[in-house]
Formats: sequence, structure tokens, C-alpha cells
Amino acid sequence: MIKANDPALRSWVSDANKGDFPIQNLPFGVFSVGDARPRLGVAIGSKVLDLQVLHTHGLLAELNIEQGVFASQSINELLQLGKPVWRALRQRISDLLNADNDQLRDNSSIRGEALHEQSAVTMHMPVRVGDYTDFYSSREHATNVGTMFRDPANALLPNWLHLPVGYHGRASSIVVSGTPVRRPCGQTKADDAAAPGFGPSRLLDFELEMAFITGDGKPLGERISTAEADDHIFGMVLFNDWSARDIQKWEYVPLGPFLAKSFASSISPWIVTLDALEPFRTAGPEPELPILPYLQTEGDKAIDINLEVFIQPEGGAEHRVCRSNFRHMYWSIEQQLAHHTVNGCNLRSGDMCASGTISGPTPDSYGSMLELAWKGSKPLQMPDGSERKFILDGDTVIMRGWSEKDGVRVGFGEVRGKVLPASL
Amino acid sequence: MIKANDPALRSWVSDANKGDFPIQNLPFGVFSVGDARPRLGVAIGSKVLDLQVLHTHGLLAELNIEQGVFASQSINELLQLGKPVWRALRQRISDLLNADNDQLRDNSSIRGEALHEQSAVTMHMPVRVGDYTDFYSSREHATNVGTMFRDPANALLPNWLHLPVGYHGRASSIVVSGTPVRRPCGQTKADDAAAPGFGPSRLLDFELEMAFITGDGKPLGERISTAEADDHIFGMVLFNDWSARDIQKWEYVPLGPFLAKSFASSISPWIVTLDALEPFRTAGPEPELPILPYLQTEGDKAIDINLEVFIQPEGGAEHRVCRSNFRHMYWSIEQQLAHHTVNGCNLRSGDMCASGTISGPTPDSYGSMLELAWKGSKPLQMPDGSERKFILDGDTVIMRGWSEKDGVRVGFGEVRGKVLPASL
Repeated sequence: MIKANDPALRSWVSDANKGDFPIQNLPFGVFSVGDARPRLGVAIGSKVLDLQVLHTHGLLAELNIEQGVFASQSINELLQLGKPVWRALRQRISDLLNADNDQLRDNSSIRGEALHEQSAVTMHMPVRVGDYTDFYSSREHATNVGTMFRDPANALLPNWLHLPVGYHGRASSIVVSGTPVRRPCGQTKADDAAAPGFGPSRLLDFELEMAFITGDGKPLGERISTAEADDHIFGMVLFNDWSARDIQKWEYVPLGPFLAKSFASSISPWIVTLDALEPFRTAGPEPELPILPYLQTEGDKAIDINLEVFIQPEGGAEHRVCRSNFRHMYWSIEQQLAHHTVNGCNLRSGDMCASGTISGPTPDSYGSMLELAWKGSKPLQMPDGSERKFILDGDTVIMRGWSEKDGVRVGFGEVRGKVLPASL
Repeated sequence: MIKANDPALRSWVSDANKGDFPIQNLPFGVFSVGDARPRLGVAIGSKVLDLQVLHTHGLLAELNIEQGVFASQSINELLQLGKPVWRALRQRISDLLNADNDQLRDNSSIRGEALHEQSAVTMHMPVRVGDYTDFYSSREHATNVGTMFRDPANALLPNWLHLPVGYHGRASSIVVSGTPVRRPCGQTKADDAAAPGFGPSRLLDFELEMAFITGDGKPLGERISTAEADDHIFGMVLFNDWSARDIQKWEYVPLGPFLAKSFASSISPWIVTLDALEPFRTAGPEPELPILPYLQTEGDKAIDINLEVFIQPEGGAEHRVCRSNFRHMYWSIEQQLAHHTVNGCNLRSGDMCASGTISGPTPDSYGSMLELAWKGSKPLQMPDGSERKFILDGDTVIMRGWSEKDGVRVGFGEVRGKVLPASL
């Protein structure tokens, strides 16, 4: 077991032993207070631990990491240092926050400087995303989409059970939770129209996803095996892959989604390390067909992460529309990474790979409005009496996720985004 | 007319008035000499002009650009300064190289320090690519592919004449000319096989493309019009979009090409500015169908750039297999950029947009082996007696491009890449 994951650990931070951010979690993010420059922090309870302050006071000296890594406005410099350093840093932070350790606990001056209320800080995009890849690894989602748009009898395309289908997405428009999202305009064409028209998307959707963030990979031309994959994965975030279904339908043949997705994707601000998620590994779905050796794995590779999606209408209350779980994914993150690099494609620190929509087996576990309201044929009833087939202007979409076991909860916090009207 | 483009200009650099890099061109690149750090340079004749040296000696002082911009290992910092600065810098370099200007011409000390033989320098990847997009804008190419793989009577898909189809590609594996390219491995499936197999691609291809490189765009949520597009485009390079056709065929539905392309793309090292290409604007193909207002343009938007592709077998001689021209593109770079941002997608300095394969109307102008050898049915005869349906291990693929008018030639040099055997 990773020492920092011990369920018996307790922190001296007063409210750190409940909620998403106990001492067993220690997710990394980029925050700022007032006019100060953004820098690296770790969430503990309702607080943010300021790593730059710890470093300045010599509390991280044993790690031999340069100050610039913690003073950076993104986690990329830390990512470049590799897994042994990520691990040593998380363990050191665990030690400093341990109820039995007096180094920081009893130094009120440094403690006051190093701990900020989360409610008083601004969270920033934690990573400069290099390349962003979106997979399509939920069998239930792929089946639902295939059923709606192609042939229910052959909903999965022939390659789907043999490889984790994926495609490249847009990195520049990935934004941090809280950033408003403007409804996109684009070309759409009604089935009975002679030619396409231009205007705001009428079928704006969310997609419930998770994404992993990588360190450096191997040089171009070399592959990473499923057994090596975890060495290159830093951690995970919640990911809302906003989608304009009407734009997508018209544009996506033959080369895949483009403007239907590239207007925005939203992520949660705290990157939960893969190490913190290890206690929640579980068995994934059994492969239905034999898979090629380069995609085979040993041991439990799924991760038990509870996921929920809420819609909050303008001025209204949050209403939960989906409960799903990351464990439903047919293809694991290790398989995704091995597939991604099997052709020699190189990874760089800050690359991000999203899972694809995480739909479960029951209708209330579908991870998009397209599926939840089944192409508009089963509108969702909202508490205020309104209906939703897709997302309306003024709606805020909120996603939350957490793992829980042996009395320990490791949470992701949330990703939220409010939809603004299109700009004409 | 842009002053630096005047056909009457002559440089005091002895061989600068012939070849690809006369004083009317002045393309930017990143080079190094010996063990010195890479920095920015401009090609002039057979020489490289060292911008860091010019800056150090005060010869660029009037521009008020920081030294770090020229000492950078990529052009991205210059890209961030925007078009007025790009223009002023190119004009100042033009003045300094002008036959009538004695400032550098008659200062043998600085001149010796600032001019390097191109044959003595190492060229580097000139840009840190942020997001890379690949369009599909040659009607002839899209028609050829649709004819081979779908239905000759409906070769173009319904959206093709209404919008410049594009998709996201992999930025991390874009390499500079001269970098060897390893044949990728991956999943492929023969039509008569029950299940896919794994191994080296047997159908390795090139795609003759060009790419433009951008400065910053507008904030997320705002669009760039066709009239504004040129303000955000710095320049262009030759682009070889290496493709593994057998991997592509199996993987690409429904989300587009992924591992079939992400193993490598190669670019020429010198970025020819869009300003230097302005004299070669010409009329493009007439639109067959009316296009939506946001895609309409005024004036000549195609560019007359001659393009050639050569294959050089291991130990053999170069053999030309394709002559095409960038003017054949149905959709212009201005239309591509306007479409890309019409949903509010933001651009960043260093983003790269490739054209898609540039095929012309005649069989000898097709821009890929897939089309030239028509899916393997018409092998190309090589001078050494061998045949080519696709690219073999040991083959070097070379692409060259240049514009020519009024006695002025503005060239791109070349992009070359040698194919190494797969790594098993």
C-alpha cells in the first residue's frame, strides 16, 4: 500500500477528515489569493496548502525541487519531474499534514501563511494542455449512440470491441470550472432542408467524462505498454465535453467531430493523483472478445468513482439528472495509453486524455442529455415544471465525483459551467 | 504593394538573387551552429541571417523587441507580438540586406558574425505547435478518396461543398525536415479476416500538404471573419502528413483518423511569411454551390505555389512522382480560419492548420500514393526498375514548393523524411 493512502491517517487540519479532500487525497491545483501570482497548492479539508510558501520556508528542502516548480502558473514543470518525484512530494505533504507531525502544526506563523480558505482563493486552469485526446470507451454510450443514429442490431461498429476508439480534440478551449460557456454558432442542416443554415446550436449537450493528465512519455517512435502506463499518468479530473449535437451531425463525416466540440470543454480544478485512486481499483467489464496482447492487462484496472450530474436553471435549484460510475468503462486508462502510443506517438507533460461519455447500464446513468432524453423523445422533468431535452441558456451544468471505501472518501470536488446565450 | 516584396529589390548577399530565398522572401526559422543554443534566423540566398546577433549589435533597436524573442528556441514569442511587429521586422531585415544599404554590408565584423552558411547550420522545429488542425480542402483529393472507398457517383459527402471539413490532429509528433520517420505498428484487419491483427503498417503513404501558422486569435467565444483572417496568419510551411492507410481504414469510424496519422508529420524548416506570398495570390476554383455569408471572401484568395514530390529509394536517385499546385484548393486559408473560429474556438500563437492533401485535376498531380497508384492498382515505375504502390523502408520522401512571378521566386526549400523499418 502507498503510505500516504493509509485509512488510519488523520490530519491536524480541523475539517480535513470529512469531505472530498482528506489527508488520503491531496490533489494538486493552481490557485491565487488577491493579486498574487497563481502558484501550486494542495487541497486539504476546506483549505488550500500553499506549496510555494512551504518551499520558501525550507519545508520541502529534502526533495531538491526548484522553487520555480511551485511558483509556476501551471503544474507542467512538476509533471516533467516524473513519478518518483510526484510520489515523494505527495508523501512529504502527507507527513507535514499528519496529526502526529508538529513541524507545521505548531508553527503558527508559517501555518497561517501556508493555509488559505478555499472559499477565499481563485482556482485557475491547473495545466497547460499540450495535446488533448478524447476516447469513446463506454460500451453503453457507444451502444446508445449507435442505436439512435445507426442500427440497433449493429449499434457497435466492428472495431469497437478490439480497440479503444479515440480521436484528437481541441486543447486551447479547455477551461477551468466556473468559466461560463457561450452557446456556439455553426452550420446545421435539417433533414428536410435543401441547404444548411447558420445560427446558434439548438441541441447543446454535456458529456460526463473523466480525463487523465500525463507526464512525459517516451521518445517519438517508442511505445508504452499497459504495464508501464501508470508511470506516465499523474492524475485525473472531471471533464465536461460540451457538445453541439446539431453541428456535429452535419459536420462529422468522414473525419470526426470538430466545431461541435471545440468551442469549450470544462475541467475540475483539483487533479487527484492516480496514487490516491489506487485503493479504489476494481474489476472492469469482462472483454467480450479476445483482445490483442498489447492491450492486455493484469489485475483490477477499473476505478470505482461515483459520478453525478446536476442541472441548475437560472435562479433555480440544482437537480440531479444522472448517476454513473467510472468503473463502467470497457477500456481502462492503461489500455487507452498503450493504444495511443502503440504507433510510436509521443506523449508530453500536460497531455490530457478524456474517457468519452461515461454511461452506465440504466437509463438514469446515461452521461449526456442526448441519451437521458433519448434524442429528445423523453424530456427530463425539472422541479420548476420545465422540461429539458438539451441544455438551455442560463442553465448551469455541475458534475461531481468521489470514491469511497474503508471510511475514506477521495473526491474530485466539482466542475461547473453556466451556458451564456450565443453571440450573433 | 508591401515594400519588402518589390521585384526590383536586390541584396548585397552575393547569391541572394536566385534560388528559393531572395530578398523578397525572408522566411523565418530556428537554427543552431555548433554547440550554441538554437535561435531565430532568416534565410537569405545560401545563408542564414542570425537575428540574435543583429539585435545584440543594436541593428534592430528601432523595433523595441526584447532580446529573448530572438534568443528563443522557437518563433512563438515573436508570434505573440502580432502582425504589425512581424511586418516591421521583415521590412527592417529587408532594408539591412538591401544592396544600397551599407549598415551591415560594409561592417565586416558584424556581417561575419551574423551570416552563416545554411550548409553549416542545424535547422530545428521552428515552432512549438499548440493545436494542430488538418483540413481536407482539395476537391480532387476528396473526390478521389470518395470514389475509391465509397461511391463514385456520390464521391463528395453532402457537407463538403458547404464547409471546409477539418479535424484535430496530433501536435507532439510534428517534426522538422530531416527527422527520420519510423514505420508505425498498429491494428489492421483484412476484409476477409475474422479478427484484426497487429504489426507494421503495410500501406505507408505521404500526403502533400501545406500548413499555416498562426499568431494569437481572439478570446474564447469570439469569431474571426474571413476579412480578418490574414491578420492572424504568420506564414506557411510544406507539410507531409504521413499516413498508414491500413491502420486508418480499420480505426477511423466513427470519430476520424487517429493512430494512422499521429506517429509523425514533417514540416519544412523555413516559415515563409504570408506577406511574402501576397504577390502570388490568384483566383481559386469557383464555388459550385452558394456558400454561407461567414465563408464568403473578396478578391483572389488562392495562392499560386508549385509543388513537387520525389521518392528517393535507399542508395538511389530522386524520382519525381507528383507535380501539383496550392492554387487548386477549393477552400482558402481565410475560409478555413473563419470556419475554425465561427463557433468561438480560440487560436493561440503557434497553432498550425494544414490544408489536407493537395491533389490537382490530372493523375500526375495527385498528392498521395493512395491516389497516384490508385489504391495499388497502378503501381508507379521507379528508375531503378522497382515499383511503388506505397512507401518502402529506406525510401526518402521529399517535397518542394515555390512561387514564381515577375522574375521573383519565393521558395519553401524542402521537407524530407526517410522511412525507418518498424520497431517490433
